[in-house]
Amino acid sequence: MALAGDMAKGRLAIIAGSGLLPSHVATAARQAGENPFIVALKDEADRSWEGFDHAVIGVGDFAALNRIFASNGIDRVVMSGAVRRRPEWREVRPTLKTLVKLPSTIRTLLAGGDDTVLRMVITLIEENGRRVVGAHEIAPDLLASVGPLGALQPSADDTKDIIRAAEAADALGRLDVGQGSVSVGGRIVALEGVEGTDSMLERVANLRSAGRISARRRGVLVKLCKPQQDIRADLPSIGISTIENLRQAGLAGVAVEAGRSLILERDAVIKAADEAGIFVCGLDRGLRSWGLA
Amino acid sequence: MALAGDMAKGRLAIIAGSGLLPSHVATAARQAGENPFIVALKDEADRSWEGFDHAVIGVGDFAALNRIFASNGIDRVVMSGAVRRRPEWREVRPTLKTLVKLPSTIRTLLAGGDDTVLRMVITLIEENGRRVVGAHEIAPDLLASVGPLGALQPSADDTKDIIRAAEAADALGRLDVGQGSVSVGGRIVALEGVEGTDSMLERVANLRSAGRISARRRGVLVKLCKPQQDIRADLPSIGISTIENLRQAGLAGVAVEAGRSLILERDAVIKAADEAGIFVCGLDRGLRSWGLA
Repeated sequence: MALAGDMAKGRLAIIAGSGLLPSHVATAARQAGENPFIVALKDEADRSWEGFDHAVIGVGDFAALNRIFASNGIDRVVMSGAVRRRPEWREVRPTLKTLVKLPSTIRTLLAGGDDTVLRMVITLIEENGRRVVGAHEIAPDLLASVGPLGALQPSADDTKDIIRAAEAADALGRLDVGQGSVSVGGRIVALEGVEGTDSMLERVANLRSAGRISARRRGVLVKLCKPQQDIRADLPSIGISTIENLRQAGLAGVAVEAGRSLILERDAVIKAADEAGIFVCGLDRGLRSWGLA
Repeated sequence: MALAGDMAKGRLAIIAGSGLLPSHVATAARQAGENPFIVALKDEADRSWEGFDHAVIGVGDFAALNRIFASNGIDRVVMSGAVRRRPEWREVRPTLKTLVKLPSTIRTLLAGGDDTVLRMVITLIEENGRRVVGAHEIAPDLLASVGPLGALQPSADDTKDIIRAAEAADALGRLDVGQGSVSVGGRIVALEGVEGTDSMLERVANLRSAGRISARRRGVLVKLCKPQQDIRADLPSIGISTIENLRQAGLAGVAVEAGRSLILERDAVIKAADEAGIFVCGLDRGLRSWGLA
């Protein structure tokens, strides 16, 4: 995190997908004295980047990415935000180096698990001489810490649900499928696939109102980093919308992995969670305790 | 499956949840010379049982279930169809024997994984002197066999998806979460939770039309029996609606576990699958080959 030393060498680029994270990272980078260049991904980045030097490129357009890096003196790159679409074959514009590796590289980009794809992108960027750094290295305040964040703590029943959901999320992560899982009264009711956390919580709300999940047991959401994932990309994150969706799904709270998850708009999250009677909790990795024992 | 011998002893009861399976089992039972008594579960069973001796009871009403068994000379019980709702606490009417085990029994019924709950129900029935038999013992023609069912076979790409989805479904089953998984181009895009296969396929269709799943790779659904489950309850099953949902989700086909999955309306399923260009395939258990090597 010795940014000052790095700054002498070159400029920071932030590759921006969808969601709030890219803005938070960009703001944090400025506060740390950086002058970030934003590479917004077409059809993914969903905010205006007025006020920042920026360019828009298609997902999979490595040729454009390298041109931008070269012409702006970029030496470090942060990947932030969600990338929901995978590029279609015709959209991948390889550089010479990626061409050498065809077709396995391209096949991975089109159809690998999220984690596989992100590792591949990191490799492609680093092979061209830039260093990929994690969003949490630029904005360390976003990292979740161990223990309750707001006024509420998980109850004994919630703790059982946390352990059960963590077990399921861990298995899910090992399969490179997703990061989130919901347990209600000891029963796993939903696992997160491509749809993402918000859609999964919507599903839980619907199952609840259809009477297919107990109305008397609240339950919890757990989000974990995939065991094998590169933490420089795609750390689990929660924000205001997570709290609102938890409320609508009737859940008691959310537990995220401490040190490997991001909490966006922390103050607003705490306020919303306290008002809704929802706990937000950081879990210590180490399956034996999860910081709960 | 020596039904003739059993028949001398007593009558067969079919506990009927939702879906088509209970009808198929009841018809098959009659064809085998049985005179089944149908116990339709309130708010679950979704067809008329005119033409069969039947009664309707609430899910969790063990007292009523035992009265019905006793007054109709029931000695064997088949559990068939889906039970989507879990009983709420006030709906569980225990018998004396279940009362002895409170509160752990009740807690399991209210909130255990599906498999845990079904084992518990089987134990409760068998403790009262009846034998629980599998739907496939009454209607063995419903069981899936190894290999393609209709005109189409999985391609090489489909086979890779089958292996990937089978791996995920196996992990899902070990967690007692669900039986189904969808892989598209080697990437797991959805796992089945409480929502069931039809809802999961609807989700895949939506993700596909939103461009979040490749439009150029078809993908497959795999349904497996949970490794630890009692095969007398809740075998994975597919029917006409599965084929229609596969088509809408743009999937190439479905693979189910041979010998431990049920195919309802087999002729109609084959016809619909052939017309839609969809394969239906039985997999040999034994993760090494899945009958594909």
